[in-house]
Amino acid sequence: MDYDFNKWMSDYRVISAVGENAEGGIDRLAYTDYDFAARTELLNRAYGMRLQCFLDAAENLWFSKPGTDPDLPPLLIGSHLDTVPNGGRYDGVLGVMAGFQVLRYLAENKVAHRRTVELVAFSCEESSRFNLSTIGSKLACGMTDPEKLKKYKDASGSSPVDFLSRLKYAPESLEDRRKHLSEILGYIELHIEQGPVLETGGIDVGIVESIAAPIRLRVDFTGRSDHSGACPMDLRSDALVGAALTIAEVERLGRSEASSRSVATVGTINVPHQAMNVVPGACTIHVDIRGIDRSSMERIYAGLRDFLQKLRVERGLKIEETLLSDEYPVPMDRHLGEIIERNCKNTGLSYRWMPSGAGHDAMNVAKLAPSAMIFIPCVGGISHNLKENVLEKDLRNSIQILYEVVMDICR
Amino acid sequence: MDYDFNKWMSDYRVISAVGENAEGGIDRLAYTDYDFAARTELLNRAYGMRLQCFLDAAENLWFSKPGTDPDLPPLLIGSHLDTVPNGGRYDGVLGVMAGFQVLRYLAENKVAHRRTVELVAFSCEESSRFNLSTIGSKLACGMTDPEKLKKYKDASGSSPVDFLSRLKYAPESLEDRRKHLSEILGYIELHIEQGPVLETGGIDVGIVESIAAPIRLRVDFTGRSDHSGACPMDLRSDALVGAALTIAEVERLGRSEASSRSVATVGTINVPHQAMNVVPGACTIHVDIRGIDRSSMERIYAGLRDFLQKLRVERGLKIEETLLSDEYPVPMDRHLGEIIERNCKNTGLSYRWMPSGAGHDAMNVAKLAPSAMIFIPCVGGISHNLKENVLEKDLRNSIQILYEVVMDICR
Repeated sequence: MDYDFNKWMSDYRVISAVGENAEGGIDRLAYTDYDFAARTELLNRAYGMRLQCFLDAAENLWFSKPGTDPDLPPLLIGSHLDTVPNGGRYDGVLGVMAGFQVLRYLAENKVAHRRTVELVAFSCEESSRFNLSTIGSKLACGMTDPEKLKKYKDASGSSPVDFLSRLKYAPESLEDRRKHLSEILGYIELHIEQGPVLETGGIDVGIVESIAAPIRLRVDFTGRSDHSGACPMDLRSDALVGAALTIAEVERLGRSEASSRSVATVGTINVPHQAMNVVPGACTIHVDIRGIDRSSMERIYAGLRDFLQKLRVERGLKIEETLLSDEYPVPMDRHLGEIIERNCKNTGLSYRWMPSGAGHDAMNVAKLAPSAMIFIPCVGGISHNLKENVLEKDLRNSIQILYEVVMDICR
Repeated sequence: MDYDFNKWMSDYRVISAVGENAEGGIDRLAYTDYDFAARTELLNRAYGMRLQCFLDAAENLWFSKPGTDPDLPPLLIGSHLDTVPNGGRYDGVLGVMAGFQVLRYLAENKVAHRRTVELVAFSCEESSRFNLSTIGSKLACGMTDPEKLKKYKDASGSSPVDFLSRLKYAPESLEDRRKHLSEILGYIELHIEQGPVLETGGIDVGIVESIAAPIRLRVDFTGRSDHSGACPMDLRSDALVGAALTIAEVERLGRSEASSRSVATVGTINVPHQAMNVVPGACTIHVDIRGIDRSSMERIYAGLRDFLQKLRVERGLKIEETLLSDEYPVPMDRHLGEIIERNCKNTGLSYRWMPSGAGHDAMNVAKLAPSAMIFIPCVGGISHNLKENVLEKDLRNSIQILYEVVMDICR
């Protein structure tokens, strides 16, 4: 594969920087103007490549490079373009841009291939905005619908549906995509690891065995606001202390299941009307429990519920739990994984079979079609952070391994 | 004292409701348009009363009802008009409005009194906006200056000085007020108790022995942002967990000093760029330690610092402490308290000597002049809260006891 890496890198820098903030982090949250701008940048670069392009009603962006045999089910590759707040330049966008380079190479060099190759940039993969992840692929896979999405709100009270204006004009596109995804040969998603395993082991490529699933909940604590100077300690009903004890317990529960590779995190906390001289009367947190061993995840969840019940009794706090996600780990397709393995061997890349701690769109597509994931090392394992970085050799490896696998399957 | 309570109540309802929000709470934060509007409402009602009125450069509002003997040092009464976010209708404003009624009664009924009676509405008593309390009285008492105030910022980055436009035109008014306060006979502040002691005991009036002082600090925790699914528990540096453990410890330390009547509170918490799927890399809290026993307060502060040092070592977090206030409990003037006691007895009001857990402007004025405080019960001891309430009998008692004390001293 003989292509101009610097030209690709120049495009990469532009698209991955859309939404850059003053700190240097990327604020390309799903369905914001920046998110739409990144897709426009990609569409502009596809101009003249004679690809079929379209946007479905979930704002997923699709490209298709037709093969010579229209009877063969197509191979789909892809990832997503949205970021977390103050995020990095590789999570999601690397998979889309590496896939885009494969399609561009096929188009520009008139490389013959029998099987159609498709690329997708799924919308709203990150849960940061609506506290629900992989909304675009969930809609395309028929795993949710606009009506159900209305209960998910961002910080300003908007639901994802408020931004899906195309639902009015092409509602049938979602059913069309669901049907299409059930007919493809398979889906391969390339993504940064977002953890330290590959870098620590000096390994080029991770082949994902299974994707961890999240159990997610919102917990609302209600106590009573009081004057911080005049209310004695024994008469207080402090919602923030209840939340703080819960945060410490979530960490303890996560650590107790570390041998099963489960994790548990409180990522958000909000005290309404907070002030230094007011005992907090209300507090809300979000809890994220993940693992590839469902029984381990359930032990954490059960431990958390027991703890909250104890807090209710001991502290007289009102505590409401709202379950936001309750998912099962998703195994990846073994046969596609072995094709990735074969191509690593052929191109001299070291590899390792491994779980994915993070969720990805591939876990939704896997319900309809064989799916696989390729992991690429990121520096220090850092992700969801402006310091997210990938070495040039690993950027080159991303394009190379994806190209080899696509050609192996589609030539 | 024969006055129209309903007329007073009608004025009270208007002024105490300035800044009412959709929930029914009052958002009359210091130096906002609502705060200035409340003062304008008061000035409008003073029109025609032939009072001397003026605003000093700290935006403190002063009224003076001259007595027949200009050689006698005046008596000052008053409180403040600003509220905490989503606050109530009695904290501060009751003291100002009860005092205003005393002046109005003297004026309208041409009551003879030898000693001049003054009323003050100090500005920015609440620490909610700038994390510093009693700014107006501190400036008037010469306990701070505009230069030092510049380091205190509200959530939008503005300092109190940004709102003190009169500093340009009448900077000398602050020195004039400091001199005046050192020459008055004394200061008496009437205020709701903001705690449950009087109501629980069925007592009409509290006579404050000593005002608790705050030690306040901001604590900034810095760890490392990571992906909440991909980063194993043992590789995390979670700033929010560090803050949560600290919040629980602050409560524990406060409880351990309950017998000395000290309290300790974390009232605010902020995680920048927070998201459910990101391990928090940074977190800031504010800690408020109060008491009337300085050595007890210092034990809490020392315990907190020890705990933070332990967290640094055990968790590798970077933790910065910034001391915002470091004050000493302030005893009230015994002689003025005994005058209040005498007038309670004469008017048949039950009373109790007690400490003030909350800080008040009286603790600043006490540095320059004999100062005293009168506490009035509030329902359920609730304050800094939209549910703050005072029974009609206690509103009537407020005006009555203040009038009796003023006439005892000034007739």
